[in-house]
Amino acid sequence: MAEEGAVPGVENLKLQDGQNPPEEETEDQLITPWEVTSGSQKGVNYDKLIAQFGSTKIEQDLIDRIVRVTGKPAHHLLTRGMIFSHRDVNLILDAYEKGKPFFLYTGRGPSSEAMHVGHLIPFMITKWLQDIFDVPLVIQLTDDEKFLWKDLSAEEARRLANENAKDIIALGFDVDKTFIFSDMDYIGSSPDFYRTMLKVQKCVTFNQVKGIFGFGDSTCIGKISFPSIQAAPSFSSSFPQIFGGRKDIQCLIPCAIDQDPYFRMTRDVAPRLGFPKPALLHTTFLPALQGAMTKMSASDAVSSLYLTDTNAQIKKKINKYAFSGGQATVEEHRRLGGNVDVDVSYMYLTFFMEDDDKLKQIREDYSSGKMLTGELKKELIGILQKVVSEHIERRKQVTDETVKEFMTPRKLKYNY
Amino acid sequence: MAEEGAVPGVENLKLQDGQNPPEEETEDQLITPWEVTSGSQKGVNYDKLIAQFGSTKIEQDLIDRIVRVTGKPAHHLLTRGMIFSHRDVNLILDAYEKGKPFFLYTGRGPSSEAMHVGHLIPFMITKWLQDIFDVPLVIQLTDDEKFLWKDLSAEEARRLANENAKDIIALGFDVDKTFIFSDMDYIGSSPDFYRTMLKVQKCVTFNQVKGIFGFGDSTCIGKISFPSIQAAPSFSSSFPQIFGGRKDIQCLIPCAIDQDPYFRMTRDVAPRLGFPKPALLHTTFLPALQGAMTKMSASDAVSSLYLTDTNAQIKKKINKYAFSGGQATVEEHRRLGGNVDVDVSYMYLTFFMEDDDKLKQIREDYSSGKMLTGELKKELIGILQKVVSEHIERRKQVTDETVKEFMTPRKLKYNY
Repeated sequence: MAEEGAVPGVENLKLQDGQNPPEEETEDQLITPWEVTSGSQKGVNYDKLIAQFGSTKIEQDLIDRIVRVTGKPAHHLLTRGMIFSHRDVNLILDAYEKGKPFFLYTGRGPSSEAMHVGHLIPFMITKWLQDIFDVPLVIQLTDDEKFLWKDLSAEEARRLANENAKDIIALGFDVDKTFIFSDMDYIGSSPDFYRTMLKVQKCVTFNQVKGIFGFGDSTCIGKISFPSIQAAPSFSSSFPQIFGGRKDIQCLIPCAIDQDPYFRMTRDVAPRLGFPKPALLHTTFLPALQGAMTKMSASDAVSSLYLTDTNAQIKKKINKYAFSGGQATVEEHRRLGGNVDVDVSYMYLTFFMEDDDKLKQIREDYSSGKMLTGELKKELIGILQKVVSEHIERRKQVTDETVKEFMTPRKLKYNY
Repeated sequence: MAEEGAVPGVENLKLQDGQNPPEEETEDQLITPWEVTSGSQKGVNYDKLIAQFGSTKIEQDLIDRIVRVTGKPAHHLLTRGMIFSHRDVNLILDAYEKGKPFFLYTGRGPSSEAMHVGHLIPFMITKWLQDIFDVPLVIQLTDDEKFLWKDLSAEEARRLANENAKDIIALGFDVDKTFIFSDMDYIGSSPDFYRTMLKVQKCVTFNQVKGIFGFGDSTCIGKISFPSIQAAPSFSSSFPQIFGGRKDIQCLIPCAIDQDPYFRMTRDVAPRLGFPKPALLHTTFLPALQGAMTKMSASDAVSSLYLTDTNAQIKKKINKYAFSGGQATVEEHRRLGGNVDVDVSYMYLTFFMEDDDKLKQIREDYSSGKMLTGELKKELIGILQKVVSEHIERRKQVTDETVKEFMTPRKLKYNY
């Protein structure tokens, strides 16, 4: 029954009566920065998450306003509900309309060399936001976090940060507008970043991080203080080389919703530090190949489509693993149709197929049984092969020199 | 009864029978990095502290060995028991005899502009150690700690670090052998220091810092992770510019005994990081003017002799406040004598009067009643006026340029 928020991108395409009713949903879902699980094959119930986290659902009028103030078309991930929730984006737009500056901040935890296609989502959105608003962007690579949480050496975590930076740069960010940094390097080269961290650390107690992140007595002290490190880039004081020492420039953070706990904490301390609260745009998760009960995870080779996969690997993984909402036999499928609410290939199309009309047609044809699972998967395979092979090509162009350029603390093209 | 460890510097000068027996001692004493109190007018029971902390008492044979391997005379603070306890100094001497390098590390929390004469003690010892061993020295100014613990802005804490650096430099450290650093600046300019911190942070749990430092659920996360910052300079990996990237150079830390909890923790994690455990030399506290039940505290103007005091102030404070072991009347004093075990002026002489023979004479004369409290205080006033006025003179010579020189991360005169 395609409830609100059940699966992104399907709200305007109602499941027809009589078609596979969704299975009884369990109410269990767990969304933390370290774990995402849902009790439903349809994936995370995002409306429930909005209520739980206390954020604001993105309605059509906010989308319309973004289009109006920027004069640019809305991204398909916005119109289809993959950017589904926010905090204070209206304030960012108010400021933007008055010509006041803001900046973008997003990040990545470099836990593996191979990023997967799910990792592209927040960066695709960030790139679009940078394009339509023309503002500075800082991208944090939390190699320190990965060192603390994983069985990784500091040196290996730092190396992975560089590898991931290449993937991020390959998305087409503008070097004149973008500063990418490794925590392990930048904290050690910016007294202002460290001071901003310290100021956050002074305002947050163990009780608070226990409540927000579930830390306990046996948590190491590095993890306990880490939230201050993810908080610090929300404040322009952390980047004097970009903002000329100004501490009042607001930040907009596009991120997957599981990162929200960090920024709830950040928003809580901001007024006490005299800094503006960061605004947020929350994205949904790309489901794992096996089904929407978990998100795609880089550490699980079978659940993931890597940005290094060959065309043959992509084809094989989707055909073999992508959870299908189709029926057991062709005859049954023709009669009952496929269930797009649980079909991972269809879900992926909502993320990666830009053509709205074509997507709508596929949805109708697959739901009615006119389109078979193999045909649906073939559409997806073609699109993802293109996405990944083009990515591989662009990544090849990214030299160590380019990485160094993006990662050097410096002024960007903006004056403050 | 001058029990072992009751008051440093008096063990070889027994109180004569019949003289004021010490008051009943309470067994309460509390020694933490933030609080030092003793239940006895005679001050902290250091033997008890050695048993409690599990360190090793410095015996005559260790003093003899230091003299033998360096060929230099022992400092009076060592022979008189103000350097009273250690950890692994024998290993440092073993290495030194084999020509293996080590380095010195000490520090100060810059909580106030005015340092007091008690702050001189660990630095006097450190200076002596640098002179007799000719090794690199790193001095940490924990402005971040003071920002976290006190009602101080980050900027003010950083400024105090610079002011305190001037006092430290005025003690005569060699700029070619000494690196002084502010945490707020150095952490933000040394990726290797930050990585060393992180490695410590990964090994220490909240449970551990709760047990060691008494942190609780309402402690801020900055304080919780701070011990890693005080630990990091114990490892040569934190100073690649000095040690050329070597991680195996052992460290010797001269410090007041209240800092030992930090280094117990540090010694505990060292083997897990593949680093040598730091060795330690513990010093006693300079008592407060009002009596040895607390240590001199910079935040209590009445208990302290500041390094900025005028001759008149020094005279007035000692005459007015220094707790006396003398008798109520001259007649009584002549008959019963003074009690050096509780007399703060006498205790200060044991710290600052270098002439052993003269000190012994004063002890005898004061204890027998031949010397009056006023005469004892006059001796002390003369010595401290000289100590402080010479310090003021030397401090005047310390320019901002000199401070900058000491605080610039750089190679020292040693090659590794």
